[in-house]
Amino acid sequence: MPSDGLTRGSVPYAFSSRMMGVQSSVIRDLLRLAQRPGMISLAGGLPSPLTFDVEGLQHAADDVLVNSSSRALQYGLTDGQPALKHELARLTSSRGAAVDEHSIVVTTGSQQGIDLIARLLIDPGDVIVVERPAYLAALQTFALAQASLHTIESDASGARVEDLDALLGAIGASGKRVKLVYVVANFANPSGATLSRERRLRLLRTVVERKVFVIEDDPYGELRSFGTFVPPLIALAAEVPGAAQWCGYLSTLSKILAPGLRLGWVVLPPVMLDQAVICKQGMDLHSSTFTQEIAAKYLASGRLQARLPSIRTAYRERNEALADALDRHLGDRIAYNRPEGGMFLWARLNDAVDASEVLRHAIEEGMVFVPGSAFYADCPDASTLRLSFATALPAELDVAVQRLARALDRSVVPPRTTPG
Amino acid sequence: MPSDGLTRGSVPYAFSSRMMGVQSSVIRDLLRLAQRPGMISLAGGLPSPLTFDVEGLQHAADDVLVNSSSRALQYGLTDGQPALKHELARLTSSRGAAVDEHSIVVTTGSQQGIDLIARLLIDPGDVIVVERPAYLAALQTFALAQASLHTIESDASGARVEDLDALLGAIGASGKRVKLVYVVANFANPSGATLSRERRLRLLRTVVERKVFVIEDDPYGELRSFGTFVPPLIALAAEVPGAAQWCGYLSTLSKILAPGLRLGWVVLPPVMLDQAVICKQGMDLHSSTFTQEIAAKYLASGRLQARLPSIRTAYRERNEALADALDRHLGDRIAYNRPEGGMFLWARLNDAVDASEVLRHAIEEGMVFVPGSAFYADCPDASTLRLSFATALPAELDVAVQRLARALDRSVVPPRTTPG
Repeated sequence: MPSDGLTRGSVPYAFSSRMMGVQSSVIRDLLRLAQRPGMISLAGGLPSPLTFDVEGLQHAADDVLVNSSSRALQYGLTDGQPALKHELARLTSSRGAAVDEHSIVVTTGSQQGIDLIARLLIDPGDVIVVERPAYLAALQTFALAQASLHTIESDASGARVEDLDALLGAIGASGKRVKLVYVVANFANPSGATLSRERRLRLLRTVVERKVFVIEDDPYGELRSFGTFVPPLIALAAEVPGAAQWCGYLSTLSKILAPGLRLGWVVLPPVMLDQAVICKQGMDLHSSTFTQEIAAKYLASGRLQARLPSIRTAYRERNEALADALDRHLGDRIAYNRPEGGMFLWARLNDAVDASEVLRHAIEEGMVFVPGSAFYADCPDASTLRLSFATALPAELDVAVQRLARALDRSVVPPRTTPG
Repeated sequence: MPSDGLTRGSVPYAFSSRMMGVQSSVIRDLLRLAQRPGMISLAGGLPSPLTFDVEGLQHAADDVLVNSSSRALQYGLTDGQPALKHELARLTSSRGAAVDEHSIVVTTGSQQGIDLIARLLIDPGDVIVVERPAYLAALQTFALAQASLHTIESDASGARVEDLDALLGAIGASGKRVKLVYVVANFANPSGATLSRERRLRLLRTVVERKVFVIEDDPYGELRSFGTFVPPLIALAAEVPGAAQWCGYLSTLSKILAPGLRLGWVVLPPVMLDQAVICKQGMDLHSSTFTQEIAAKYLASGRLQARLPSIRTAYRERNEALADALDRHLGDRIAYNRPEGGMFLWARLNDAVDASEVLRHAIEEGMVFVPGSAFYADCPDASTLRLSFATALPAELDVAVQRLARALDRSVVPPRTTPG
């Protein structure tokens, strides 16, 4: 008989085993709360709509519909529209990595890029190494792939890659296959940390030695507020013999142009790229040719490069406003590192206060954030939280932190355990 | 050691086992040939660009960018933009199935819908029953899912569903789990056949009894040229007790509006829908909000309903032109059934001529088609071919068939085996 053996409670369907380990994102649930009137959201990583170049996109859309509608509205190539790949190769090269358009596959947001790479590499039980904490939606995708997740700690300089070699050795000794290391090297989500140049080089040396593929996810790299640019792994690979074939790069137009276009891209070494194209054929044939052609026109117009400084300024002001407000209203009740850019500030409540309990009060006070527990592949630290400064204005961020302080006042501090 | 055990030839990467069984689509390769100057393509299912309502889409895009840019350019809901879901529910209801917008998930083309359903249900080795022949890109996606494919023959009235019960029984007895039946009920790709009302009802009765989910893929339903409308399975489910929870429906705007928007949708029963949304979160977060909002405006404008009659006329003229040309230039050298609509005509070369060999000559003569072998999950019939009348004009179709006749003249007819 077909499916009776696998029913789930009163559900008649025998879902695949991959669906057993996957849950809906807590953030997507919080985003619903965030829509309540008067609520200030520090929960989502929604880019500020003020950064959307509506006029520029309108010009590009007009141009596409007037001059190339039969191409833009038709089926396209699985790897992406040539004009967009050309522009994305230029954009990636401007980040220090001289890539060729033939090494790019356009994806439906970088989220699809993560899924694509997991499907290329992961059989159930295969190991992916992620940071601790790590990007929530990547954890979801890796759960769909039925990967076994192992973690390396992250500190102010990003993932502690000096622990990676020993970890890979131990996993290998246990008989599992490590297939992938996943890192967000610039202003990580959620930790806000940036992986130092030294650690990037060390990471590359380790993956070459251990023959493990590393993918750098770089949604935020253009949004640097402070400090010095560090090249992506695929750029630094030129300094590490053999590294070029062991690393890839993912990015997106979501944080610098508009998430609604759903356009990301992945840079991969040749053999892996061929397989990625075959896999993507089965996934969705190709990403929207219409938004691809519009993005290509937009990027070719030079407007993005002209606007990036003001986008960076907007996020820097919010970054500073949030950190200043935390210092002002919470002082030593919270510990955090100022992120050098991006959209997120990661914090730990002192006195082991449970962030989920604080969230309950915070919602009543009129602000939301994401409790840090969601971002751990293992052993969650309940006193952590992620604060996004992407969406709210600087003045709103200050009010939100005042509300957070009141929520903290109302939360139970667990009794101190005296040592000995 | 991580991955050395699984290398593929000289390739250093240990790809997932799902990638071992998947190949690039022969059609995508043929499409490259189709771009040669002077070539007439009967290969792809590319909608005629004459059916694209560029002006209507331009109005919709303007409207969206002027009036709702911060929604259309922002992240959106995984299940789809409410305005589009509302319109898609109306459109589906106009096809006889009174569906609610809450039973819809918007997908990146119906291809993603196929992938989504396979990921919800299929563990490696689970069985999917498909028609023989079946839609090539679905076969690719099911190969990615590592499904075991079983087939039911298709004739002029679609899949021989009267064979399904015995097939399901036999597979069940072999210890495999059947998870899904996949059918294109209207003007199937590639067979052109339409599943009769009687067979649709019988199919529903069988899946209810056997507790197997059936998904109807309906990209072409609106493109009926001749004959009488037959309601989709989800509409007929009302006549079969218990059937509502065992069937789903997939469709797309690709054939009636524009493939480049990459918008499809899936209608699913509640529990399956919830799982689909969780799975899609991990796949790409959501489909493009920008193209969704544009499509919603477009559909709300009523222009699609006003244009559908002329789109149908365009395809009916091509459908007739191709069939007439085959009768005129090939006569009894070819056998086929006139399709009642859609984009494809399926034919068999008499005298067991190998369609792949004919294709070699046809390319030299200046026309391409897809050899039928590609569409078989098992035991390909090498004398079959798929001719698309979607892209070429009626006069071009006639020229293409003349070229096909010359190619056939040049092809080797295998010696007749005399019985006895």
